Amino acid sequence: MHQALPVCLSRIALFRRSTGATSFRSLLPLTTTPRSWFEVAKFHHPFEKVCSVRQYSQQKPARKPFNWGSNKKHRDFKLKAQILESMAADPKIEEQLAPLREAVKEQGDLVRKLKAEGAPEIDVKKAVNELKARKKILEDRELALAPSVASFDRARMEDLLKRRFFYDQSFAIYGGITGQYDFGPMGCALKANMINVWRQFFVLEEQMLEVDCSILTPEPVLKASGHVDRFADLMVKDVKNGECFRLDHLIKNHLEKLAAAKDATKELKDECEDIVIKLDGMNKAEMAAILTKFGMKSPITGNDLTEPIEFNLMFGTQIGPTGLVKGFLRPETAQGIFVNFKRLLEFNQGKLPFAAAQIGNSFRNEISPRSGLIRVREFTMCEIEHFCDPQLKDHPKFENVRDVVMTLYSACNQMDGKSAQQIKIGDAVASGLVANETLGYFMARIQQFMLKIGILPDRLRFRQHMGNEMAHYACDCWDAECLTSYGWVECVGCADRSAYDLTQHTNATGVKLVAEKKLPAPKTIEVTEVVPNKAAIGKVFKKDAKNITELLAKLSLDEVETIGKNLAGSGEHTLDVNGTAVTLKSDMIAVKSSSKTVHVEEITPSVIEPSFGVGRIMYSLLEHSFQMREGDEQRCYFSLPPVVAPLKCSVLPLSNNADFTPFVKKISSALTSVDISHKVDDSSGSIGRRYARTDEIAIPYGVTIDFDTLKEPHTVTLRERDSLKQVRIGLDEVAGVVRDLATGRLSWADVEAKYPKFEQQEASSK
Amino acid sequence: MHQALPVCLSRIALFRRSTGATSFRSLLPLTTTPRSWFEVAKFHHPFEKVCSVRQYSQQKPARKPFNWGSNKKHRDFKLKAQILESMAADPKIEEQLAPLREAVKEQGDLVRKLKAEGAPEIDVKKAVNELKARKKILEDRELALAPSVASFDRARMEDLLKRRFFYDQSFAIYGGITGQYDFGPMGCALKANMINVWRQFFVLEEQMLEVDCSILTPEPVLKASGHVDRFADLMVKDVKNGECFRLDHLIKNHLEKLAAAKDATKELKDECEDIVIKLDGMNKAEMAAILTKFGMKSPITGNDLTEPIEFNLMFGTQIGPTGLVKGFLRPETAQGIFVNFKRLLEFNQGKLPFAAAQIGNSFRNEISPRSGLIRVREFTMCEIEHFCDPQLKDHPKFENVRDVVMTLYSACNQMDGKSAQQIKIGDAVASGLVANETLGYFMARIQQFMLKIGILPDRLRFRQHMGNEMAHYACDCWDAECLTSYGWVECVGCADRSAYDLTQHTNATGVKLVAEKKLPAPKTIEVTEVVPNKAAIGKVFKKDAKNITELLAKLSLDEVETIGKNLAGSGEHTLDVNGTAVTLKSDMIAVKSSSKTVHVEEITPSVIEPSFGVGRIMYSLLEHSFQMREGDEQRCYFSLPPVVAPLKCSVLPLSNNADFTPFVKKISSALTSVDISHKVDDSSGSIGRRYARTDEIAIPYGVTIDFDTLKEPHTVTLRERDSLKQVRIGLDEVAGVVRDLATGRLSWADVEAKYPKFEQQEASSK
Repeated sequence: MHQALPVCLSRIALFRRSTGATSFRSLLPLTTTPRSWFEVAKFHHPFEKVCSVRQYSQQKPARKPFNWGSNKKHRDFKLKAQILESMAADPKIEEQLAPLREAVKEQGDLVRKLKAEGAPEIDVKKAVNELKARKKILEDRELALAPSVASFDRARMEDLLKRRFFYDQSFAIYGGITGQYDFGPMGCALKANMINVWRQFFVLEEQMLEVDCSILTPEPVLKASGHVDRFADLMVKDVKNGECFRLDHLIKNHLEKLAAAKDATKELKDECEDIVIKLDGMNKAEMAAILTKFGMKSPITGNDLTEPIEFNLMFGTQIGPTGLVKGFLRPETAQGIFVNFKRLLEFNQGKLPFAAAQIGNSFRNEISPRSGLIRVREFTMCEIEHFCDPQLKDHPKFENVRDVVMTLYSACNQMDGKSAQQIKIGDAVASGLVANETLGYFMARIQQFMLKIGILPDRLRFRQHMGNEMAHYACDCWDAECLTSYGWVECVGCADRSAYDLTQHTNATGVKLVAEKKLPAPKTIEVTEVVPNKAAIGKVFKKDAKNITELLAKLSLDEVETIGKNLAGSGEHTLDVNGTAVTLKSDMIAVKSSSKTVHVEEITPSVIEPSFGVGRIMYSLLEHSFQMREGDEQRCYFSLPPVVAPLKCSVLPLSNNADFTPFVKKISSALTSVDISHKVDDSSGSIGRRYARTDEIAIPYGVTIDFDTLKEPHTVTLRERDSLKQVRIGLDEVAGVVRDLATGRLSWADVEAKYPKFEQQEASSK
Repeated sequence: MHQALPVCLSRIALFRRSTGATSFRSLLPLTTTPRSWFEVAKFHHPFEKVCSVRQYSQQKPARKPFNWGSNKKHRDFKLKAQILESMAADPKIEEQLAPLREAVKEQGDLVRKLKAEGAPEIDVKKAVNELKARKKILEDRELALAPSVASFDRARMEDLLKRRFFYDQSFAIYGGITGQYDFGPMGCALKANMINVWRQFFVLEEQMLEVDCSILTPEPVLKASGHVDRFADLMVKDVKNGECFRLDHLIKNHLEKLAAAKDATKELKDECEDIVIKLDGMNKAEMAAILTKFGMKSPITGNDLTEPIEFNLMFGTQIGPTGLVKGFLRPETAQGIFVNFKRLLEFNQGKLPFAAAQIGNSFRNEISPRSGLIRVREFTMCEIEHFCDPQLKDHPKFENVRDVVMTLYSACNQMDGKSAQQIKIGDAVASGLVANETLGYFMARIQQFMLKIGILPDRLRFRQHMGNEMAHYACDCWDAECLTSYGWVECVGCADRSAYDLTQHTNATGVKLVAEKKLPAPKTIEVTEVVPNKAAIGKVFKKDAKNITELLAKLSLDEVETIGKNLAGSGEHTLDVNGTAVTLKSDMIAVKSSSKTVHVEEITPSVIEPSFGVGRIMYSLLEHSFQMREGDEQRCYFSLPPVVAPLKCSVLPLSNNADFTPFVKKISSALTSVDISHKVDDSSGSIGRRYARTDEIAIPYGVTIDFDTLKEPHTVTLRERDSLKQVRIGLDEVAGVVRDLATGRLSWADVEAKYPKFEQQEASSK
């Protein structure tokens, strides 16, 4: 089955994205920016060391994210999560997985051996590609054996999202555009709340420097970052009508169709399966060969197809009226931070470390967007760039997170066919599994954030990039992945990117993007430099003299030495000053060496980058919180935590009796005065039907005005969405209680303990 | 002086923007969207009626926006505002202005007379153009006579904004791009706070439906909205190097230079001045004539220039890989709301009125951006579209604002050369000056918002569009303008846009964007329709039958009547079905009339649109809050209200004594736990210097840890930025007090009354 095609991992192969949306690891890595697509020159990661990490495999996370509803109502998710968790322990399942695990491990061992022997790079790459193919089979099988995840009713959830306008296709009345979505009131509020929590959790709590930079970016910036040259996917075009197909999608669909045909031979089926698995690792030439071998045509028209074309995924435009200043819509927000590094360092009074953050939209011109919010053409990102001394990657607040237990899926375990393991982040850093404290600190904080907004802990893992996925300059990289019906979706990347980005922009602009580091003790250094005789130069070169002396001050040591030799030899040296040859004689310049005492050295900071895809996190969150009422699967709802729920409270008069109206207004005003977003639903539906409608849009609390409200002392009922429990509470108190529930100062259990239970209404809703 | 050029206001003239950045009314109207550029077919506004409005000219606004600092510190602004306000009362100034006012009034009377007589449109337009020219002279003179506004030290403020990185040019290390700005930590926080207040004030308090729509917009959407055809400026190009010049800027600069020459005759000077004043109203042909008459060349190279070219201001791009789907970056956020109207109406359970809101970026490819944040290529907008029954424009909450006093600069006063007047919004609506309650309600709310964030009431006015500025479909339009050193800057537009936008999108898509309105009583109507014999049609036309019957159901009454005639005559009718001629005979269709009872009618809602330019408001706010300490003009600061200040509090140890450190940490944690953004400054500068630094970034409160803090009971000092006053306060209390100050629950006067005064530190800062 693993009959290998000639495989040669090239640059292009490394930054292409995977093929299928429904397969286990097929989703566009959020951090597949050009920075991670360069050819892997070396395997930096010490696999051997990683494998000695102690394991906490069956230990449960120490923290629970929130406790705002009855656990009973999370039954469905618990169930699924338990199935996933217990899979390894189920002997029947393990029996099926064992040979696959063994196949992965065998290949992982081969990779290690080849590397240890210093085998040719091409051989290592071939072996790694085969390893990835075996890993994919294992993971697909694992997912297939988790029936409850597979049976998740996505269509039902999507119907609800559309019906209640959480989000929907943009410009639908004009026929719509794929890969673009408009967020309606509920989606927009959910997104805004998620971003507010993010800002509070990261920017304010860590005192980061938030910036808001331009989206339109001139070409040279993205040339330096690598996006202009390498941010591309392969596609083919219908030669007659110009229709475009993403090459990997096309091959996959074609071969799957071939293999599914009734008359397909065993050999053909195996070959097709093998190619589909290896598509991820193939380069342009290999894919072109497959295209030719199987004589693939346009699946729509049957017309011939062009050769594969590299299609840059950035949206291009012209800035200004001349048509000469080429620009792009930024494909990530990070570059805006890097180009402002000097200003930010100065704002921070020249001190390292500091972190900058940005929330904003980025754009990628996907060839064929799919998978709803997961692969789109415009999306919101929250990115952090933490700048620090490359020698000092410890973190002052690491102590606060040392005992946070995380699900880590190490490169080593991936190579060995093992599953993810639970481990305290402190231990992961101590053992070297996670490269440094700062990286570990951010990973723990990412997890805390994800759990705070409602991501289920059992469906969150951190997967380490394997050596061949990682950019050559990166020290370590972990993706926070959420399990959804599309498989594990990369939602947050967290990478130690070393000094790469700042160096690239320094090289492109000549502007030093460095920080000054105080030396432990002053240091005496020998300096060899060209000393100009300004009078003599000025006399000869007049107004050009300034350019010449400026240039002399910037020369490299090599150039200075050359000048010294030339002066000693011919007595003159010819310099290229902005394209003009200028001959300088011994009376104009001299090369001198001297000692200088320096107190600081210049360093290019390292960057640790947590990068969040808001749309992907939101989609995962919606799946994780989608629920059906027991025994009534028509009644679906989202169990979103109050902190991100679009609205915190509903206000419902029991009927349209006019006597209720002043009380509705009073409660609405009281909620507004304590900043609690809410919705009044005084439409004519039954109270049960209206409760169901508020559940659908994830409103966690509902206040109902009934006939008892009219009596003194005025009281109302307060209902909790997940438990369906209600209490009777004073009219004047209710707004404050809802505020305290929504902000986490009170739990529902506190409320149930304090106020009398109320049962009548929900019963009447059936 | 008013020697008129042949003037003909055309469409293009109406949507071009004015010439100079430094002149009084020369700034790009924020709402100069294509919707307001259409030729004005009629003057809807009843000028006569407007002029009967009662005047409240010397009455001060009833409300003050906030009261969080000593009034004494606003001395400088008070002074300027008083000068402006008292100008009309100063006989010397009025003496200079009187002839100019008279000239405006004379021309205003002429315009009224021409309109009353039904004079040809071309004559009315000429007269209006002359009126605008005279108005501009009056306003320029008014501004010139307000010396304190003119003497505002913009360079000093801009230096501070740059130095403390509120905002600065984007991509500066790559040479920068004009019209693009990056917001640093302080600018970003200020912007985020302003937007949060906006969301709280409008979206949450009014329960609007917030949406978040795509930026990339396909061409047909912007074709329907009018942007593809009409969103353009005129420019000329250097024929040799292709350099572009905005035509009105070029002409203005050229003529100003001519007029300033030593040998310029009085006639030439007058001619130049006259043209410059009238530039705003000129069309392409008129400008081309001036270009030729004066033989203008490129001011850079002296090369010849091309004929004027219309340059569309939208950034174009391609969506998807084919290069066939043309798209633009949206030039405004409003269209995203209109294309989602059906979903939003449904979300609101089919009921009118409702308002939708959107916060997001828009893009305009300015030919030559200038004036800092005021005219840029990408900018954030907050837009509201309030949809209502065209017959019911009253507003249920109008009562709440009826007595709000506003500075209104009516079209009538503009025509009469009078200044703006203060009037209660209730009276303005009652008299018909403001078209309806909903428009008036939003105008009052806009004012309340602007004052809440710190715009000075004396530098805010609402200017009514004159008939010729208003789009032909608009009923009434008012701009909230802020007085800055650039003159009056349009910051918020507030227009009653009738049914225009929804109608345009309905026409373009065939999708009815309407609401159902219940009739007061059921109505019986006569319906004439084509009744198909489906069996007969199906037999003959097979699979095309469905298209035919669908088309028959959509026919207009006229078409139905034609079919009836044809059937009665020849016994058949030929129909164009998607380009194919289909002949239908009497056995296939019949035309029948019947009575139907209907309970609802379909109406296209009217739209009231308040549209906020965040960057312009922010810039105005920065100017309004820029202050210099008395007697020390090196110490500048921004007196921003705490609600929008980037950070609410600073924490400063008196020195770098290690004993202070635990207290600094404790206070920082306490502030974080009550969600108060703050900055610890433990750098080595003197306490006075560090106070000055925190003042520069507008931090309203400062906590200082000194040697008394070390003693029990632990206390700190708390300082207020504007008054420089300090109190001594308990360590455990201070975070709560700062929170209450920042959220407006406490005033500084309350704090001074409760806690002992502290004086030592500020004295030592000198």
